Amino acid sequence: MSKSLLFIPGPVTVAEPVLTATAQPMIDHRGPEFKALLERVARRMKPIFGTERAEVLLLGSSGTGGLEAAVANMFGAGDRILACPIGVFGERLIAIARTFGCDVDVLETAWGSGVDPQALRAKLESAAGERRYAGILLTHNETSTGSQNDLASLAAAIRGCGAYVVVDSVSGLAASDFRMDEWGFDIVVTASQKALAVPPGLAMVAVAPRAWERMDSNRAPRYYFDLKKARDFAALGQTPWTPPVSIVYGLDAALDEFERTGPRRVWERHARYARAIRACAEALGLEIFSAEGAHSVTVVAIRVPAGIDADAIRKRLRDDRGVVIGGGQGKLKGQIIRIGTMGDLSQTDVLGALGALEIALLDAGVSLHIGSGVQAALRVFLETEAPAAV
Amino acid sequence: MSKSLLFIPGPVTVAEPVLTATAQPMIDHRGPEFKALLERVARRMKPIFGTERAEVLLLGSSGTGGLEAAVANMFGAGDRILACPIGVFGERLIAIARTFGCDVDVLETAWGSGVDPQALRAKLESAAGERRYAGILLTHNETSTGSQNDLASLAAAIRGCGAYVVVDSVSGLAASDFRMDEWGFDIVVTASQKALAVPPGLAMVAVAPRAWERMDSNRAPRYYFDLKKARDFAALGQTPWTPPVSIVYGLDAALDEFERTGPRRVWERHARYARAIRACAEALGLEIFSAEGAHSVTVVAIRVPAGIDADAIRKRLRDDRGVVIGGGQGKLKGQIIRIGTMGDLSQTDVLGALGALEIALLDAGVSLHIGSGVQAALRVFLETEAPAAV
Repeated sequence: MSKSLLFIPGPVTVAEPVLTATAQPMIDHRGPEFKALLERVARRMKPIFGTERAEVLLLGSSGTGGLEAAVANMFGAGDRILACPIGVFGERLIAIARTFGCDVDVLETAWGSGVDPQALRAKLESAAGERRYAGILLTHNETSTGSQNDLASLAAAIRGCGAYVVVDSVSGLAASDFRMDEWGFDIVVTASQKALAVPPGLAMVAVAPRAWERMDSNRAPRYYFDLKKARDFAALGQTPWTPPVSIVYGLDAALDEFERTGPRRVWERHARYARAIRACAEALGLEIFSAEGAHSVTVVAIRVPAGIDADAIRKRLRDDRGVVIGGGQGKLKGQIIRIGTMGDLSQTDVLGALGALEIALLDAGVSLHIGSGVQAALRVFLETEAPAAV
Repeated sequence: MSKSLLFIPGPVTVAEPVLTATAQPMIDHRGPEFKALLERVARRMKPIFGTERAEVLLLGSSGTGGLEAAVANMFGAGDRILACPIGVFGERLIAIARTFGCDVDVLETAWGSGVDPQALRAKLESAAGERRYAGILLTHNETSTGSQNDLASLAAAIRGCGAYVVVDSVSGLAASDFRMDEWGFDIVVTASQKALAVPPGLAMVAVAPRAWERMDSNRAPRYYFDLKKARDFAALGQTPWTPPVSIVYGLDAALDEFERTGPRRVWERHARYARAIRACAEALGLEIFSAEGAHSVTVVAIRVPAGIDADAIRKRLRDDRGVVIGGGQGKLKGQIIRIGTMGDLSQTDVLGALGALEIALLDAGVSLHIGSGVQAALRVFLETEAPAAV
């Protein structure tokens, strides 16, 4: 397998100490060593979720499994749910809710933008009495469009409406400040293979105190993803089912590094990389797909010029340069490329990948002033670099 | 973490090359390398399931997730299901089926025994017309009791009844001959962390052709575990959701070793270890929990003498000797110890652990002739060892 640089929005490049940690010998998942490991990891995830009150549970699944857990434990047949999709993963939340019989109403937002807090507020106010929403489904960061919501504003718009709020932060958490308690969210879901830069296989679900009562009255079927069972076992330092021990080891090692670096510098790194990639694209005359004020810090979506096949560019980048980037999903297939900022990537990696991108664009017939993209990215790094370089 | 020997029935000790394989760098789960990996692993699992016709799908979950996938895709509200539990994991299958609204009828079997084929046949014949069973739930190997079913006989008893047969072989597959096609099973479930000796995180589900049609008419809700979606993505060399790439790497490496050794020698090794452990227990005057003819090859359950606390023995073995064995689950808690044969364990490991067990039993007040257990195990190894020692 030739060396390649992963710039897809997950799975991301995993740092060597984390990979090494995943290869530790197996232990009894019902023994004292795993208990200590599980409790340590759950405790250290809490500040990343921005919570003291919520319980953090680990599920052996991808992020999608975590989303199913959130929805199927909280909502069921006939529950009126307001979904606020801003891309493919928001639509996935809708599909999950409909699978479990929910009556889903959709607040539409143009792809590339974040949800408008006023539109959300108006939608909630229009749904009174019988029509009141039992739940609201939000996406923090949407990798399919390179956009993210301003969750603080949405939290303010939601406040007081009484609905339970489920937030998909699979590709957002740990890459920017997140305040679950302050924002009043009930369940927040993330996964190992995104900003935490651990191999995939683990979903982490934070559950606020008032969510537990709701689950008692919800009859939607769930077994593997039963969060109350997960909580009962977590109280013993266990999981109900055999957990992916290797990935938990990896998460523990990744949290070491996260804490050593400090959250603020981790957030800054993601924001800086995203800014550099956007600056590069703009200098090359390309259009950023996400709207101003809604740019994701974990992935940048860039429109390729009309007549150019985005997927052909991706293939050339992968085959000739070992640089792996994302393409468009759903209705954006072939129209955009997506460059992630998560994982064990240095500024050097980013600059190299952007240079490779320039060559691939030129080869594909895009007219550009070669080097201008990398130059713009370099300027961002020089202007924003912290005194002690990351 | 001090060195310890894992004799629990999963997760098991993983061989060094497999651990190393799990620590390989991440790749794009939608790229050509993962496609080749996924297709290679699925193809190599087929002979282990004893199938040419079935499709083998990989799910990012524990074995329990695979069981939920099997049940929720095949059966739903009001379906009459015959469950044939022989221990805790058979009861888990019942709980899953009831969660999804199935009308579950239970064929009771004394714990420690396998299902009686004639009793099964009679039960099926008594359920005619409207009362006909839509499905049958079987356990291949039951780690909670150290027993296993004679699946060939059960398959013969079932033949022609028309019901769809779901088999939990989480702790059985790869440790003995399995013939899915010949036995006419519709879905067989296994997991990575058992006889294949890979870290946990992956369920492997084999689905026979006629099962797919059944799924079209089944309305039970499933999203993460939707097997048709898994099949659609498998056709592209992908999984619907981000897979636990590290564990798939590990499975690939474990299959290298499995094929190098050859299935027959792998089966013989499990059977020989189980026989040696049983011989040891019997020489020490202890009772094997499983009935004659129903002994598991992957785990031996041993009753501790009345008045002796099995869990105290386990704790001493773990703390003083680094030997980790299982205890009783459910109604057997405190009454039995369970010693697994799966994983990267040598005969030396087995002999060492049995010696340590003798000391722990003596310390706990069990009257025994020290060394007689290990002696009996040694005899089994000497009598049954293949010319080229494993």
